[in-house]
Amino acid sequence: MSKITKLPTALAIIVGVGHGTGSAGDSSINLARSYAVALLARSKDKLEQISREIQTKGGTADSFPCDVSSEQSIKSTFRAIKTRFDKIPLRVAVFNSSSSFQMKPFLESSRDDLETSLNVSVLGAFSFAQSVLSELLSHQEGGSLIFTGATASIRGSANVGCFAAGKFGLRALSQSLAREFGPKGIHVAHVIIDGVIDTPNVTEWLGPAKTSDTAYVHLHQQDKNCWTQELDLRPCHEKF
Amino acid sequence: MSKITKLPTALAIIVGVGHGTGSAGDSSINLARSYAVALLARSKDKLEQISREIQTKGGTADSFPCDVSSEQSIKSTFRAIKTRFDKIPLRVAVFNSSSSFQMKPFLESSRDDLETSLNVSVLGAFSFAQSVLSELLSHQEGGSLIFTGATASIRGSANVGCFAAGKFGLRALSQSLAREFGPKGIHVAHVIIDGVIDTPNVTEWLGPAKTSDTAYVHLHQQDKNCWTQELDLRPCHEKF
Amino acid sequence: MSKITKLPTALAIIVGVGHGTGSAGDSSINLARSYAVALLARSKDKLEQISREIQTKGGTADSFPCDVSSEQSIKSTFRAIKTRFDKIPLRVAVFNSSSSFQMKPFLESSRDDLETSLNVSVLGAFSFAQSVLSELLSHQEGGSLIFTGATASIRGSANVGCFAAGKFGLRALSQSLAREFGPKGIHVAHVIIDGVIDTPNVTEWLGPAKTSDTAYVHLHQQDKNCWTQELDLRPCHEKF
Amino acid sequence: MSKITKLPTALAIIVGVGHGTGSAGDSSINLARSYAVALLARSKDKLEQISREIQTKGGTADSFPCDVSSEQSIKSTFRAIKTRFDKIPLRVAVFNSSSSFQMKPFLESSRDDLETSLNVSVLGAFSFAQSVLSELLSHQEGGSLIFTGATASIRGSANVGCFAAGKFGLRALSQSLAREFGPKGIHVAHVIIDGVIDTPNVTEWLGPAKTSDTAYVHLHQQDKNCWTQELDLRPCHEKF
Repeated sequence: MSKITKLPTALAIIVGVGHGTGSAGDSSINLARSYAVALLARSKDKLEQISREIQTKGGTADSFPCDVSSEQSIKSTFRAIKTRFDKIPLRVAVFNSSSSFQMKPFLESSRDDLETSLNVSVLGAFSFAQSVLSELLSHQEGGSLIFTGATASIRGSANVGCFAAGKFGLRALSQSLAREFGPKGIHVAHVIIDGVIDTPNVTEWLGPAKTSDTAYVHLHQQDKNCWTQELDLRPCHEKF
Repeated sequence: MSKITKLPTALAIIVGVGHGTGSAGDSSINLARSYAVALLARSKDKLEQISREIQTKGGTADSFPCDVSSEQSIKSTFRAIKTRFDKIPLRVAVFNSSSSFQMKPFLESSRDDLETSLNVSVLGAFSFAQSVLSELLSHQEGGSLIFTGATASIRGSANVGCFAAGKFGLRALSQSLAREFGPKGIHVAHVIIDGVIDTPNVTEWLGPAKTSDTAYVHLHQQDKNCWTQELDLRPCHEKF
Repeated sequence: MSKITKLPTALAIIVGVGHGTGSAGDSSINLARSYAVALLARSKDKLEQISREIQTKGGTADSFPCDVSSEQSIKSTFRAIKTRFDKIPLRVAVFNSSSSFQMKPFLESSRDDLETSLNVSVLGAFSFAQSVLSELLSHQEGGSLIFTGATASIRGSANVGCFAAGKFGLRALSQSLAREFGPKGIHVAHVIIDGVIDTPNVTEWLGPAKTSDTAYVHLHQQDKNCWTQELDLRPCHEKF
Repeated sequence: MSKITKLPTALAIIVGVGHGTGSAGDSSINLARSYAVALLARSKDKLEQISREIQTKGGTADSFPCDVSSEQSIKSTFRAIKTRFDKIPLRVAVFNSSSSFQMKPFLESSRDDLETSLNVSVLGAFSFAQSVLSELLSHQEGGSLIFTGATASIRGSANVGCFAAGKFGLRALSQSLAREFGPKGIHVAHVIIDGVIDTPNVTEWLGPAKTSDTAYVHLHQQDKNCWTQELDLRPCHEKF
C-alpha cells in the first residue's frame, strides 16, 4: 500500500478484525485510506498488529478489544471510541464477527454451541447495530452499516445447524434494518463471502492480499440512488 | 368431524397448540384421526380445551403444559409423554411455537425482545428437535419433524427484525436437519404460513376450520421417494 | 390400485404424460380415482398404455396426442377434449411437459437447443395455461393449474443453461399466474421435483409406483384458505 | 465528467444503451474512462448521442446499430467491432437489453408478447454471450460479462408474466455461465436493478447522473478471489 496522506475527516468502525475470512485486515487497511479506523475484536494482539500496520503507512487507527457478545462491552467500547475520535463523525461500520465455524452432528451439539453462535451473530450484531445506527442518525450525512455473512447465511447444511442459525438470523436483521433505515439515508448491506469459510487455511489459500477489501468500500461509496442490499463474493475457482 | 374409531398405534406430538396461526388446533384434531396426540403449550387451559374436544370425538389426547424456551421443561415433558404413552411409538412431531409477533422500531427494541424470539424459535426448536430425533431414531419406522414458519422466515421487514431473526434461525435449523436426517429416514419439513401472521383476528377471518390442518398430515404421509422440504401456505386472496 | 367406482363428474387434463420424471403416469392414475382424465403427450403409444391401464381399473381416460410447443396443436386438442368430455367441467390441469434434459458446453450449444427448451417449457406452458384458465374461469367452481419444475428451475448450473432458461421461465409464469388468478379462485402451483432429473434410469431407481402421485392431488384438494404456491419433492436419500 | 486522457488499451461492449433503466448511458460514459467502448442498440440516434458525448470528453467510442434478437445481426456486429477496434482486446461486455416493460392481463397477452420478451432477454443474451465468451477465451487476460436484470428476474407478478419469463430465463443463463466460465477466468455477473423499472419517468426521477454507473466498473475490477455473481441495486427510498 502506498502512503496514506489525507487526514481523516470521518471514522470507520470494524468489528471482527482477524476473523477467518481473511478479509477484515485488508478491508481495514483499505478503509484506512479514507477514514480513521476503530478496530474491534476480542484479541488485542491481532488488533494492534493491524493497527500498527495502518499507522506505519500513515493512516489513523486504534485498537479496542471488545467482546461482541456482551452488550455492556459494546456500549463501553463505543464510549471509548467517542472519547478517542471526538469530533470525527462515524460514516462506515462493518460487522465482521463470527462464532468459530465447526461441523458437529446435531445430536452431539449442545445448547451452548447454539447460544455461542446466536450470541455473536445475532445478539452481537443487534447491539452493534443499535450503537452504530444511533450514531449515524445523529448527523446529517448518513452512512453505511455492512454485515458479513457466509454460505451458511442462505443454506443450512448437515452438521452446520448451530452456525447457520446464527448466520440466518444475522441476515434477517440486515434485511429488516435495510428496509427501516434505507429511507432514513443509512445504507445497510449484507455481503456473503462464499466458499472461503469452509477452507482450513484461508489466508494461505487466498494468497497475499487478494481479498474482498474493495467490496466494503465500494458499498459505502454507492450513490444513494443505487444501493446494494445483498451481494455475494467468492473465488473464481469456487464451485457453487 | 366424524367419530374417531381406530385405536391409535402411533403418537404425534404438537408443541405450540393455541398459537395465533389458527392452524394448530385443527391440525391436532386432524392428526388425532390417526394418532394419539400429545399437546404441548404454555397455556394449560387452551391445551385442555383441544384435548377434551378430541376425546369427545373418540380420539386419544393428553395435555402437557410446557415452556418451550426451557430445555429442562422440554426434557421433563418428553419423559412425562413417555410415561403416559408408554408403548406407542412417536411418528410425527410438529413445532408450531412462536414468540408473539410484534412490530417495533429497531432502536426501541431491547435485547430482551430479541432473546425472547431466539429462545422460542431457535433454542426451543433446537431442544424440541433433539428430543424428537432421539426418539425417532430409536425405532425403525422413521417419522416426521415439521416446523412452522411465517413470511418473516424468508424476508426481514422494517420493524420486524427480532421476530424475523428467530424465524430465519428456525429455517436454518430445518434445512440443516433435513440434510442430516433425511438419509436416516426422518422427514424434516418447514411450512411457511404466509400472510396470516399480519392479521389481527386470524381465526375470525379464516372462518371456521378452514386451515392448514391437512398439510401437516400430507407431509407426514408423503412417500420417502417424494419428500417436501419446504412449502408455503396462504389464503387465495392474500396478496404476496 | 383398487377398482375405481365413482363415475367422474369432473375432468383433469395432464400434458406431458410419459415424461422422464416418472411421476406423470402415477399422477394420472391417481387423478383417475376422482376425475375423468384427458392425457396429452407427443407419443401416442405411451398415452394409450396409461389410458388402457386406467380403463382396466374402471376409470375414465382418453388419449390426445399433442405437440405442446405448437399453439395450434394445443388449441385443437382442447377442442377435441371438449367434444369428448362434453358436460364434464375441467377442475385440474397439470403441465408436466419438458424438453429433454441434456448437458452441453455453452459454446457447443445452438440457438436451436435453447429454442427447443423455450418452446416447450415457456411457450408451451403459456398456450396450455391460456386454454386451461379460459376454461376454468367459465364455471364457478374454480380449479387448479399445476406446473412441474426441476432443480434447474431455481438454479442454473454449468452446461445446463438452455434447459434452465426454459425452467426458470416456466416458474416466472407460474408465479405471475398465481398472483393474477389466485384472487379469482384458481390455484396455480409449481412443484419442483428435485434430483430425479439427473438420474439415468429414474423409474428403475425409484422403484415401482413410489412417486409424487399424491402431491398433485393434495395441491388440488387444498382449501382455498391454505394454498401452496411452491413446493419441492425429492427422494429422502437425495443430497441437496 | 473530467476529460478522459488515457489512451484505451482495452475494449468494452455495451448492448442496450438507451434502455429505460437510465443506467446504460452513464455506465457507458464511466466505462469510457478506461476503455474504448462499442455501443450497441437498435436506435442509431441514441447511440450516436452517447458516442459523441464520450468523444467530446476525450474518450473513444463508436456506434453499432444492432438488433439483439437476431443472431445474424449480433454476429455481423461483432465482426464490425473487430474491424473497427482491431488490436484492442475485449475485456468487459454488458448486456443491458430488454424488451419494453408492459403490464397486460394474461388472457389478453399473445404468444407474440412472450416471444418478444424471450427473443431479446433469453435468445439475444444467448447469442451475445456466445460472441463475447469466444472472444474473451481467445486471450489470456480473461474479462467480464455482465447482465442487467430487474425485480422481474426474481419475482413473477400479476400481469407481468411475459416480461418476467424473459428476465428469469436471462438469470438462468447468467448463473449457468458463471458456473461454467468462472473457473476459466471469466467473471459472469447479474445485476438486478430494482424498482426503477416500474417508474414512468425514470431519468427525471433519478435525477442527473446518479446511477448505477460505477457498479459495472466495480464488478469488472473485482479481484478474481472475490467475484460477485449477483447483486441488487435500488434507490434508498425504494420500498422493497
